[in-house]
Amino acid sequence: MNKIPIIELFGPTIQGEGMMIGRKSIFLRTAGCDYQCAWCDSAFTWNGTEKNRIRMLDPAEILNEVQQLGGNLCNHVTITGGNPALIGVSMQPLIHLFHQHGYQLGLETQGSLMQDWLLQMDDLTLSPKPPSSHMKTNWLVLDELVTRLLDKRVHFSLKVVVFDDVDLSYAKSVFNRYPTVKEKYLQPGNAHIQDTGDIVAYLLERLEWLFSRSLKDPELNNVRVLPQLHALVWGNQRGR
Amino acid sequence: MNKIPIIELFGPTIQGEGMMIGRKSIFLRTAGCDYQCAWCDSAFTWNGTEKNRIRMLDPAEILNEVQQLGGNLCNHVTITGGNPALIGVSMQPLIHLFHQHGYQLGLETQGSLMQDWLLQMDDLTLSPKPPSSHMKTNWLVLDELVTRLLDKRVHFSLKVVVFDDVDLSYAKSVFNRYPTVKEKYLQPGNAHIQDTGDIVAYLLERLEWLFSRSLKDPELNNVRVLPQLHALVWGNQRGR
Repeated sequence: MNKIPIIELFGPTIQGEGMMIGRKSIFLRTAGCDYQCAWCDSAFTWNGTEKNRIRMLDPAEILNEVQQLGGNLCNHVTITGGNPALIGVSMQPLIHLFHQHGYQLGLETQGSLMQDWLLQMDDLTLSPKPPSSHMKTNWLVLDELVTRLLDKRVHFSLKVVVFDDVDLSYAKSVFNRYPTVKEKYLQPGNAHIQDTGDIVAYLLERLEWLFSRSLKDPELNNVRVLPQLHALVWGNQRGR
Repeated sequence: MNKIPIIELFGPTIQGEGMMIGRKSIFLRTAGCDYQCAWCDSAFTWNGTEKNRIRMLDPAEILNEVQQLGGNLCNHVTITGGNPALIGVSMQPLIHLFHQHGYQLGLETQGSLMQDWLLQMDDLTLSPKPPSSHMKTNWLVLDELVTRLLDKRVHFSLKVVVFDDVDLSYAKSVFNRYPTVKEKYLQPGNAHIQDTGDIVAYLLERLEWLFSRSLKDPELNNVRVLPQLHALVWGNQRGR
């Protein structure tokens, strides 16, 4: 079977954040999440409002749609959610098929669930959620995941979304817990995810706030501070 | 002796562009350039208007100023210009001293001049200039530089600033010339470098333009498109 619950498949667009910022990619969004972050920008993946849009697709069907969307214009797919790590071994044939066809695979997860196939990603973002999300980090799972990713020299990063100083303290505790992880990112949270209007001034104010925090904190010397470029350019538009 | 002509020394601030985007850094700007790009955003380094600000400093003096500026808040220095590759072997003691004191060194140059010490940078951006600059690329030097950087596995990237489609064609010729270089960046040019007002809408329009070009061009599948974050957040302010 190996069918995977897909709620969105769109692109090519530009990855606007994190370790692959600025890179052309097609986005494959899986349905379902073990978290319910207070400020989730993709709550439709888990709150049932769009459950009719979920399609159970097998790897060949997904590849076909990605090829239709991208043609020769894109060789990178970002798997996101929801939490795509909810999907078990049925992800393995999809990874194999996409690699066979020359695609690089990126993935973003909060790091709450271990899956062996995570080690096969070409780029992986672990994004543990800070206190403002109202979620609790499972440090045992995150520790195991980081250890195994380091051990297998996977190209991965830690990225923490930050809304306030409590979140920032949490982010530093994450970064300090894994000193040998090379790529670490801070991203200002977007509290205006429902707004369809111009949020540029707000987003840049939050970026400047996080820049200023970074500049006066010796614990953030090796951490990159990045915005969501797609939100700056396209607002909260879906499918971007 | 080993004195180096310094025209600006500022920070810590956030590196807003290219391969180190989002990283905290102190900027060391050398005076002098072998180019005179039509749209240079730092023409004061070579057009004589600020020649009275140039100071001849030796490595210990520069280290002292960097330590005064950064304290324990910064471990990265970006050497820029002008073209810092104009400086010969007198750069060697500075590199040695900063590495001894735990600093990482980044550098940006157009790649028009070879210096052995370029191979000792922790991150290096080669930014050949497109036709809109009215400069001519010295391909012999650039070829040698890229070959030696690849050979020594230096962490480096190619970055081309693009104002129009002619520039974009040039950028693609650069990227295609060096297929084994992993990190390649496009950056929209800023034609409003004299404006002190709000240029955010303009900068985001140019970013969206370059995103759209990237999305429909199969030759740009592996190229990142990034803005100048410092210009988005702080405008054309000097010392940022």
